[in-house]
This record gives sequence, structure tokens and C-alpha cells, in this order.
Amino acid sequence: MSRVHDIELHRGLLHQADSRRHLNTPALVLDRDVLERNIARMAAFASSKSIALRPHAKTHKSVDIARRQLAAGAVGVCCAKLGEAEALAEGGIDDILLTSPVVSPSAIQRLASLRARCASLKVVVDNPTNVATLCSALGGERLDVLIDVDPGIRRTGVADAEAALRLFKAIEGARELTYRGLQYYCGAQQHLPSFSERHVAVHDRTQYLETVIALLSKHGARPDIVSGGGTGSHRIDAELGVLNELQVGSYALMDRQYAECDLGAHGSPFEYALFVDARVVSANHAGMATLDAGFKAMSTDGGPPAIVGGAPPGATFHFMGDEHSAVVDPSKTHAWRIGDLVSLAVPHCDPTVNLYDTYHVVSDETLVDMWPVTARGRGR
Amino acid sequence: MSRVHDIELHRGLLHQADSRRHLNTPALVLDRDVLERNIARMAAFASSKSIALRPHAKTHKSVDIARRQLAAGAVGVCCAKLGEAEALAEGGIDDILLTSPVVSPSAIQRLASLRARCASLKVVVDNPTNVATLCSALGGERLDVLIDVDPGIRRTGVADAEAALRLFKAIEGARELTYRGLQYYCGAQQHLPSFSERHVAVHDRTQYLETVIALLSKHGARPDIVSGGGTGSHRIDAELGVLNELQVGSYALMDRQYAECDLGAHGSPFEYALFVDARVVSANHAGMATLDAGFKAMSTDGGPPAIVGGAPPGATFHFMGDEHSAVVDPSKTHAWRIGDLVSLAVPHCDPTVNLYDTYHVVSDETLVDMWPVTARGRGR
Repeated sequence: MSRVHDIELHRGLLHQADSRRHLNTPALVLDRDVLERNIARMAAFASSKSIALRPHAKTHKSVDIARRQLAAGAVGVCCAKLGEAEALAEGGIDDILLTSPVVSPSAIQRLASLRARCASLKVVVDNPTNVATLCSALGGERLDVLIDVDPGIRRTGVADAEAALRLFKAIEGARELTYRGLQYYCGAQQHLPSFSERHVAVHDRTQYLETVIALLSKHGARPDIVSGGGTGSHRIDAELGVLNELQVGSYALMDRQYAECDLGAHGSPFEYALFVDARVVSANHAGMATLDAGFKAMSTDGGPPAIVGGAPPGATFHFMGDEHSAVVDPSKTHAWRIGDLVSLAVPHCDPTVNLYDTYHVVSDETLVDMWPVTARGRGR
Repeated sequence: MSRVHDIELHRGLLHQADSRRHLNTPALVLDRDVLERNIARMAAFASSKSIALRPHAKTHKSVDIARRQLAAGAVGVCCAKLGEAEALAEGGIDDILLTSPVVSPSAIQRLASLRARCASLKVVVDNPTNVATLCSALGGERLDVLIDVDPGIRRTGVADAEAALRLFKAIEGARELTYRGLQYYCGAQQHLPSFSERHVAVHDRTQYLETVIALLSKHGARPDIVSGGGTGSHRIDAELGVLNELQVGSYALMDRQYAECDLGAHGSPFEYALFVDARVVSANHAGMATLDAGFKAMSTDGGPPAIVGGAPPGATFHFMGDEHSAVVDPSKTHAWRIGDLVSLAVPHCDPTVNLYDTYHVVSDETLVDMWPVTARGRGR
């Protein structure tokens, strides 16, 4: 087990540590067997479709999980932030695509330093100004870049094909930068619940991407890499055949939001691997109990978690502030006792993982390992 | 400066570190002068009303801030979770009230161990079952307890005066526990925007508390400590004179939610001391820009932050996923440039602080210190 495990032992956080039931709560629990099945299923899918996998590490922020994804055939990982990439590179992950522009002078200096240690580092750009500032810090060293193309979200990315071409020309004129291709992430489409509606929407956006690629190709800039997609669109992207690299993230851990989406397979191809286990700390009212998990234990942007253990069917979950939440049995018949465990599938995995220092890794309800959330808080 | 500062220097996170403008972003920024004014104002208020201050450390999770509150006259601090209390005790804070029940066998063992190092530790109880489990772990050592009284939220606390009396009798029968008084936190009333409506609501709830105290007093259980209140109700609580200890937390840092409440003084007695500074990473559309701060940089339970710098009047803020947000100038005239800083007053301070390892402490826009968020993530 890891150094984190020793720290937890030292702090007395592990008591009868062999059982999930005895973990101090709220605990971030990872089912290793499910994780491995999810990783294997996505790897098999990508292999069957001859599309590369570059899982997004912003979801798990974990060297241990990234290594398993690479061992299953991924070509590398994505990172959302420079600090996240630095943390994973320190852990030995060396093929990293930074999926958001790096713009400030100090961040670009750090990027150059990371590039020196991480030969396969790639970063997206979406503006000629950024091309100029990147070059000035690289001191002659070369860096691979992808042009980020905005699918219409107005978050990052060039706004149209002409802007992509202008940016390509800026990159071509920059001795330090090597144009490798495009990034195209249809974030607004990932969580459309209906597979057929998502298919229509992603198809439409992919037709637009083809016009961008056509203009670039006409000017000698056919992209080598076309990277994008997510857990919601991965089957559609593979079918349409324009992307050649999938940036899927959530599939490995899963969350309530994606579990509510039809992912286009027979049944859901991915299962809940991630949980927050919480404990009843107060039970003074019929049919309800207060848990020790609130806003600091789960991100709230995705609504409530799904209750997956420790409560009767039909029980509902309600956040109750920073430190607490409630579970309610509408029939008022369930009598929770102080100390009872309730297991929750998290509403949105990425920002929830970022709240914890440690994954408590279980197999068959037994604690088998503890993995650090390597890049937790490394958002800068 | 602190060890954290050395780590940041080592990682290259500080570049031209003397200026707030050059911080890597998103950064949690604390204005030291405002913090000290907020602490002094609350201390002067409490002193003038002869009510004790026990600031809630769940807000700031910081030994550095707790020390300043104690130096200004606070009798001790509150902690929401055992791990938080352990972290502050390691930092030398020794009068701590744990404001949520501690229930599991392993947590109670840790509590007993903390009690041995921290003579003034106190913990709330709300159920006779918990009294029994606490006693069994204390091994003869004594522990101060407060009865948590539910003001009607159904989160924690005994449900009525009779339950309070039954719990008092259980405590009286427990050799290891010393009854010290009551906790009463009107959480549902703190953020009522109108001071007069909040006054009516808190007055009503305080009349109920007086009935609980009356029954207890009739049975020889007049409380020594009556601890509760928050930033929203502190003036009302002091005026009503039933609480004798204020658990105010947010006043020291402040956030948008409390800034929108009339706190009952002439003008707001407290100013924004806490900010998230974010940077423009993409600016490809007229009148809008994308910032490097999303769900992982600010908690979302309190709505959007208030924009306090780097944007024209009337600009609006929009979360754009885990890593990004947008600022929009409705007049479409403001031209943000890549790298521009935008300063945000956070929506809800407590869960936002819990996302960061470090406060970047500034005075007059100059970085003067870095303080660890001592108890970040210590939610168990």
C-alpha cells in the first residue's frame, strides 16, 4: 500500500481497515473490479473501431488510474490544467495533451520546463497571440500544438474555419511550434439523455468540423490528430469516423449524470465504480436520517447523488449544507440507526474527486489499497 | 513565509511573486487588511454586547486565521468535523467545540485520543445512543458535552425539550461526560435577506429555545454555555440575550451570499476579504471572455460569484463546466485580452476555501504571505 495509507494509519483514520464498513466517512470509495471492467470495455470498443484512446485525466487526477488506462492501450492522457499535467508527469505519465490554452508568462515558463521533461507533451492553442507568447518562452525547444476548434460553445477554440486557417499560418511561421492537428470537444452535447437526439446533434457538429478540416487540408494543413469526444458521444464519434482520438473521461468512474444517459449500447456499458460512503450521524425523526456528507463531500453542480446502498427503494437525498445531507424514506417506515452507512453514486465525478486526497480502493467490500488523488487541487 | 511558500517556489508556481497580478490562477486570494478589519469589528461588537465569540473554523480551516481570532478575544473555535479539529489541534488550537455528533467506533477512538491532547475539547450530542458509545471509548477520561437542540431544521439536535431532558439525564448518568450546556444553530434563518424578517424568525426560534432551557433548568440542568448563531443572526442573537456564545464563521472572509443580506448595521459591517482571481484564457468573441475557473475553483451551491475586478460594470458571470467560466459584457464593448485578470468574490466561502491548499495573502495588491488551508479535505 501507499504512503497515503501510512499517513491514514498514523492519523488513526483506518480502523479495522480491512472492511469498507469501517472506513471513516465521508470516504471516496473506488471499486477496483468495476474500474477495471470499465477500462477494459472502453479499450475493447476503441480497438474494435480502430480509434485511439486518450482518456481525460481531469476526471480521476490519478497516476494509478492513468497507468491502468495506458496499460489497456491508451495512447496517452489529457489534462485540463498545467498543474494537473505537472502532477501526472511527476508520476511518470509522459504523453499528455493539455486541453486548455496556457497563457500567462509564468504558466508558459512552467510549460516549457515541463516540455523539457516530457517529450510527448502537446498543448492546444486558439489564438495567434498565444502562439507568439508560447514561442518567446520555448527558447528554441519545439512543442507540439493542436488547434482547438470551438463547436459552438464559445468556451475555448477558434470561432470558424477561417480563424483556424489564420492560426495554422501563425503556427507554421513559429519555429518552435509543430502543428499536429485539431481538438474538437462537443461539451454541450455529451449529456443529452436520448441517444438518438445526441446522435443528431453530434452529427450536425461533426459536419461543421469537416468543413474546417476541408479548408485546412486545401492549404496543406490536413490534421494528423483529430482529438475530442466524451463518454456521452464516444459511440457516435467512432461511427462518424472524423475524430481519430477519443478524450473520454467519466466512463472509468461513472456518475449519476452519465448513468441517466442512454450511451447507445445494449444496456449501459459502464457501471458505477466511484462512491461516496457516508454515515448517519443523527436520527431523531421517523423515516429520515442525517448523513455526514454535504457540499464539501460532493460537488453540487450535477444535482443530488443516487442512493445505491443503505436505504430502502424510493428513498430520496437532500443536501443540508456544507457538512450534512438527509436521506428520507417517504413511507416513513425505515428506521436508520446512528452509525449506519449509506452509499452514494456521485452526481458528477470530476469535481467530486477533486474534493478528496485519497481513493479508498475496494474489492468485494474489502479495502485492498489506497491511491492518492495525485493532482487534487492542482488546478493552476 | 511558510513551508507552502517554499513548495510553490519549488514548483515554479510563484513568478514575480511580489504582485497579485502575477499569481498563477485560479488563486485563492485573501486580503489581510480586510480580514483583520472584519475580525476586529466582530470582536468589538461581541465585547460591547458582553457575548463570547467562538468563531467557526469550518469556514476558513486555517490555523493562521484561528490564531488571529483568538488574539482578538475569541474564547475558542468551532470545528464541524473531527478531522478538522485534529488539524487545528496539531496547529496549536486547543479550545475546540465539535459542532456535529461523532458516532462511529473508529471516530470515537480518535476523539478520545484528541481529548487527551486537547483539554478544552467539547463535543455535541443529540442522542442517548451516542452518549453510551462515547463513554465506552473514553476509558475513564472526562469529556465536556453540549446538547445539540434542533431549531426545526431536522439536521442534528434533539427534537424537543423532553428529548433534551432525557438526554441530559443520560449524560448525568455517564461518569465520563460533563454536561456544559446547549448548542442551537438556526441555519435556516441565517440568509434571509431582510434583517427585519430574519429578526422575526430568529426571535420566534429563540422563544422556543427558552422553553427548552426552562424545562432543563427546572430539573437542575441550567446550561452554562448556550452556543449558536451565525453571521446572519449575530446582532439579533446578541440583542435577544439567550445565547452567550456566538459561532459566527463567514464574517471573517465574507461571500456574495452574505453580502446580499442586510446584517442590521449601518452599511455592511464586513467586507470581502476572500477572492478567487481568475485569468482570461480565451477571448475569441466580442464582449465575452473565458476564465480558467470552473466548478473545481468555486463551489456552485451558492450561485455565481460577484465580479469585483477586471470587468466593466454590468458584466455577468457564467459557469462553463469543471475548468472554465465566462464573463460577458452585455454592451459587447469591453475587449478582454488573453491573460487579463478577473477578480471574483466567491458565492459561498466555506466550500470554496475547501477546494484550495493555500491562501495567497495580499496587502495593497502585493503578496505578503502564503497560509496553508490547514484542514482542507479533513472532512472525516
